[in-house]
Amino acid sequence: MTTAQRTFASDNFSGIHRDVLAAIAGANVDHAPAYGDDPVTAEAVRLFRQHFGDDAEVFLAFNGSGANVVGLQSLLRPFEAVICAESAHINVDECGAPERFLGSKLIAVATPDGKLTPDLVEAAAVGTGDEHHVQPRVVSVTQSTEVGTCYTVEQVIALGRWAHEHGMWLHLDGARLSNAAASLGVGLGAFGSAAGVDVLSFGGTKNGAMGAEAVVSFLPADGSPLRYIRKQSMQLASKMRFVSAQFVALLSDGLWRSNAAHANAMARRLADGVADVPGVTVAYPVEANGVFAVLPPAVTAALQRHHPFYVWDEGTGMVRWMASFDTTEQDVDAFVGLVAAEMAS
Amino acid sequence: MTTAQRTFASDNFSGIHRDVLAAIAGANVDHAPAYGDDPVTAEAVRLFRQHFGDDAEVFLAFNGSGANVVGLQSLLRPFEAVICAESAHINVDECGAPERFLGSKLIAVATPDGKLTPDLVEAAAVGTGDEHHVQPRVVSVTQSTEVGTCYTVEQVIALGRWAHEHGMWLHLDGARLSNAAASLGVGLGAFGSAAGVDVLSFGGTKNGAMGAEAVVSFLPADGSPLRYIRKQSMQLASKMRFVSAQFVALLSDGLWRSNAAHANAMARRLADGVADVPGVTVAYPVEANGVFAVLPPAVTAALQRHHPFYVWDEGTGMVRWMASFDTTEQDVDAFVGLVAAEMAS
Amino acid sequence: MTTAQRTFASDNFSGIHRDVLAAIAGANVDHAPAYGDDPVTAEAVRLFRQHFGDDAEVFLAFNGSGANVVGLQSLLRPFEAVICAESAHINVDECGAPERFLGSKLIAVATPDGKLTPDLVEAAAVGTGDEHHVQPRVVSVTQSTEVGTCYTVEQVIALGRWAHEHGMWLHLDGARLSNAAASLGVGLGAFGSAAGVDVLSFGGTKNGAMGAEAVVSFLPADGSPLRYIRKQSMQLASKMRFVSAQFVALLSDGLWRSNAAHANAMARRLADGVADVPGVTVAYPVEANGVFAVLPPAVTAALQRHHPFYVWDEGTGMVRWMASFDTTEQDVDAFVGLVAAEMAS
Amino acid sequence: MTTAQRTFASDNFSGIHRDVLAAIAGANVDHAPAYGDDPVTAEAVRLFRQHFGDDAEVFLAFNGSGANVVGLQSLLRPFEAVICAESAHINVDECGAPERFLGSKLIAVATPDGKLTPDLVEAAAVGTGDEHHVQPRVVSVTQSTEVGTCYTVEQVIALGRWAHEHGMWLHLDGARLSNAAASLGVGLGAFGSAAGVDVLSFGGTKNGAMGAEAVVSFLPADGSPLRYIRKQSMQLASKMRFVSAQFVALLSDGLWRSNAAHANAMARRLADGVADVPGVTVAYPVEANGVFAVLPPAVTAALQRHHPFYVWDEGTGMVRWMASFDTTEQDVDAFVGLVAAEMAS
Repeated sequence: MTTAQRTFASDNFSGIHRDVLAAIAGANVDHAPAYGDDPVTAEAVRLFRQHFGDDAEVFLAFNGSGANVVGLQSLLRPFEAVICAESAHINVDECGAPERFLGSKLIAVATPDGKLTPDLVEAAAVGTGDEHHVQPRVVSVTQSTEVGTCYTVEQVIALGRWAHEHGMWLHLDGARLSNAAASLGVGLGAFGSAAGVDVLSFGGTKNGAMGAEAVVSFLPADGSPLRYIRKQSMQLASKMRFVSAQFVALLSDGLWRSNAAHANAMARRLADGVADVPGVTVAYPVEANGVFAVLPPAVTAALQRHHPFYVWDEGTGMVRWMASFDTTEQDVDAFVGLVAAEMAS
Repeated sequence: MTTAQRTFASDNFSGIHRDVLAAIAGANVDHAPAYGDDPVTAEAVRLFRQHFGDDAEVFLAFNGSGANVVGLQSLLRPFEAVICAESAHINVDECGAPERFLGSKLIAVATPDGKLTPDLVEAAAVGTGDEHHVQPRVVSVTQSTEVGTCYTVEQVIALGRWAHEHGMWLHLDGARLSNAAASLGVGLGAFGSAAGVDVLSFGGTKNGAMGAEAVVSFLPADGSPLRYIRKQSMQLASKMRFVSAQFVALLSDGLWRSNAAHANAMARRLADGVADVPGVTVAYPVEANGVFAVLPPAVTAALQRHHPFYVWDEGTGMVRWMASFDTTEQDVDAFVGLVAAEMAS
Repeated sequence: MTTAQRTFASDNFSGIHRDVLAAIAGANVDHAPAYGDDPVTAEAVRLFRQHFGDDAEVFLAFNGSGANVVGLQSLLRPFEAVICAESAHINVDECGAPERFLGSKLIAVATPDGKLTPDLVEAAAVGTGDEHHVQPRVVSVTQSTEVGTCYTVEQVIALGRWAHEHGMWLHLDGARLSNAAASLGVGLGAFGSAAGVDVLSFGGTKNGAMGAEAVVSFLPADGSPLRYIRKQSMQLASKMRFVSAQFVALLSDGLWRSNAAHANAMARRLADGVADVPGVTVAYPVEANGVFAVLPPAVTAALQRHHPFYVWDEGTGMVRWMASFDTTEQDVDAFVGLVAAEMAS
Repeated sequence: MTTAQRTFASDNFSGIHRDVLAAIAGANVDHAPAYGDDPVTAEAVRLFRQHFGDDAEVFLAFNGSGANVVGLQSLLRPFEAVICAESAHINVDECGAPERFLGSKLIAVATPDGKLTPDLVEAAAVGTGDEHHVQPRVVSVTQSTEVGTCYTVEQVIALGRWAHEHGMWLHLDGARLSNAAASLGVGLGAFGSAAGVDVLSFGGTKNGAMGAEAVVSFLPADGSPLRYIRKQSMQLASKMRFVSAQFVALLSDGLWRSNAAHANAMARRLADGVADVPGVTVAYPVEANGVFAVLPPAVTAALQRHHPFYVWDEGTGMVRWMASFDTTEQDVDAFVGLVAAEMAS
């Protein structure tokens, strides 16, 4: 294939939604103070607070790893540890940035579906008070998860309650929080302080932005170290207004939700399509914009000659297909047809 | 003032050059592989090599602090030190990111004009072989400097030669390398491996990009750790093509040079204008796009009521004015007039 | 109990062997150069090389965590990872010092008996060449292991071969290397470069020293960063001769071996004794100086009223008993008797 | 020379005071809990509190760099900075350990005599509230200083007051605090919380111990991270009782003071002696156990053929001579005679 078409490789293979690009262009008017002291950033923060509440502090960042590392830094010291799912992006996909820049150990927990539970966390939270052990301090969940599942609001609340009862914080990696909220039919704020989340990363990039992520903190703003942490962590944009403009576009008029809901629907359509193909198994509940399917390796190889996508688990033959805001029904149907044809051949 | 006009506060108060924005829009075609495995990035790398030579390895990054920290990480271990000017951006303007993420000490050297010399470096490079001392390993220069001066090509060559003779590397922070090259009438490659530079940061943002910086390394690409360092340092863009497109615009058809030369000329015009105002002193040679002037504090305060700009040194009353690619002659002349009026009042 | 008696809590509950203390006193003659430039240290290094070969570089350190972190630092960069057993001291007992000071991720592998195998390592060494993943770079084994088992020489050789074939290093945490060598009837050097070990920690403290550990490196000494790493890692003793003297005592005349062999024999006697007590299970092969037994929690609690020792696994009721160089047969027999009595009550 | 005699090279060229060695031997009775949970450590802590007050938290450590890094870690986050004298041990003699393990910048201030003042600190404490700058958070003083001078109690109080008024902490590197207290005729506690010191390092090693340093904190013990910081920083001794015993010896019956006073007197005698030698200049007030003298380089070279000592400043020809607890009047007089003879030759 040429890459100049829509694929199911990743939601970051997609480009910029036209409204986001228009917002960037619209912000390109004369001069504006750098580093976030500009009106577009003020508007973006206002919109974030509209969604997450007035107690939300907002710090825009460049990418998801950056947002995660910045947010987590505000919650723990190096001898304290983060409990996360084994599949968590911070554990497997950030080239060790959390260990390197937090100085902290990640305690990775095997999960059936990418989701932590209070019981799983409790079993991993050992060594408290023992100076030889790292001290569990943060529970970090991903919403929607790396395997395309979603925590219900109640499940997040239960984890937040558990964390706070144990003197710990709840961090949420929301690189695809929009997909989860759209899937569950709730607002973004349902996964903020109302759910017991203390700090979250909110992702714009996979939802139609060019490159825009945010750290949203519900800790008291007073004395918050986040401004300094963001700058020291090399995540402070000088021409911030153009990052902010992307969020202004996404968070106004529900673009975040329509983009996410569309991607979710395309994943649903794809899952339904391949589920009907004999020999293909869908591995996880399709609750967001990702489909994980188990295929014969030869079929995977044949498909990859036409379409780029990632093998998720060499051992089991599981592959990952992601739908984006710009995936079309035609894209899905053509791909389902291709899968069926390759399976039949 | 309102900020929606052109100011002399910083070259990052300016927006996006129209050709850069057009390049971003032009790259927004369907899907493309993420993380730099796309044709736009390949084109950007090709253009970088056209300027810096075929041995240049190129790693795009989000911002200047990120590019500096990534590049320096490839050159030294934590017990090794960086010798830099006291005024260097890495020393004063990155919130300690270098110490934090390199783990290394910066040895800051006072300079008359922001420029290191072999003699200044030699005096600071103490303790070699003594395990109690950090081991000097990198000389880092800024081109053009933080006070608007430029190293000549010969001066950089002399520092590179000194560094290599002493088992050290030469790093160049080129956040405004375009301004220096335009000022000196040389190509960008004059400050690459030909000058003995081992790794440099090349800045697009201050030269009309939205947010695009690069690490250019002349060390052997084989076994280079830079891919991993960039990712771990949270500087790898997922939708990389849109960072790359900015460099494609700047590095094609000489946009980098025309933008820089224009900003330099406006700074020159501003310096010439205020030099004629009795009581105003221009503090450093105006060799790039910055003007440093000494004013009575009351005049500074009066000017700042209309125009944002930074006081560089409270003690001496020195202020900084930066020209940008979009600064007009009218902007300059009006501002000079304002300075003259305030000085006279 | 009072603690002023011999216990099975840990081999670091024991004191200083009389010959070691005498060596410290013997080194206390007038002045000597600090930081290791003294004759006692030279003698210690000579003895280390007698055991480990002339290519061994030796860096004395304060404690086991320090020796591990210093040695590992010389082998990897922050984006590279260490593969170790889940039970490894570096993974569970160093309060996250490796992550903090290496900046690296530890990839912890579940093992049946505390021992890695090439197959186990191979399964964990994923993501090579993928910049999103940490890069596996060091295999770290503990000899004897944290659960009292020993690698055979051949098993270490096989791991070293695997590591080198995959561009990786083999690190050995030898906090109890003496116990393993004594148990296997080989010299210390059997676990040095001959076995493919690149860097090891050698422990004196648990073997009768007051506090003395060493990093032994088989990498080329030329350009070795270890002197600087040790100093920067706060592991360089100023009055080094008194650390060195401890190793002079241990490494001369086979004190290391007699101390270790005695501790091993006492562990063997203890294991044999409790194995005869109905209801007590010995959990791992007793190949060094530790005995891991499974007891009813009530019996553990009753025993702990008299003798301090650690519960190793709350879930299974497994406890750990360690023998020391100064453990006596009477100590063992009395304790076995106590276990039998409590089991019967 | 042979090194088996008393020299003026460093107070860590000296050995172990007989009472300290006896205390180590005395603690070598059977088993004791590891990591500080033993009666000798309890006694050491009791004695520390006798000197420093009941609110003092005490954490023994291996060496001075370790104590400084552990103590400072409890006071600041990586984006915060330490203001110290340019000559401070943390700045020049710890191979960059503070930058590496705090992640923080040290702001080094030139001083005439190794001593900070509120005015000097105030001039260096810039950038507060500016996210681009590191945030000044700790003032660190050395008592006695690296150039043999002492802060008066009032001078420390003034710095403490300044620090607290500016939301900062006062850290004291007391590697030679005993010498200062003996010199000033005050108790150790004069430099504790009474003087506004928040955390200090207290040195035993240079005062007759084998190797024993302590972090003493006056911050609320509740929730103190110091236990974890010490362990993670590889400064927790397993057989702690033998570190503690050294402090028990020093802090009982005034051994700390008599050792320090003797060393001070020998330095005084040396300074007086060489001051009478024509051509020799004593560079700093001799207020503790160090003498800094300016000699012709040829004389320095001639003296160093017989006696090891360090050149402090190649440029000025300044050398450093340190007296120890075991320096004799004969040692001093013989050395003065040698200096006189070499100056006359």
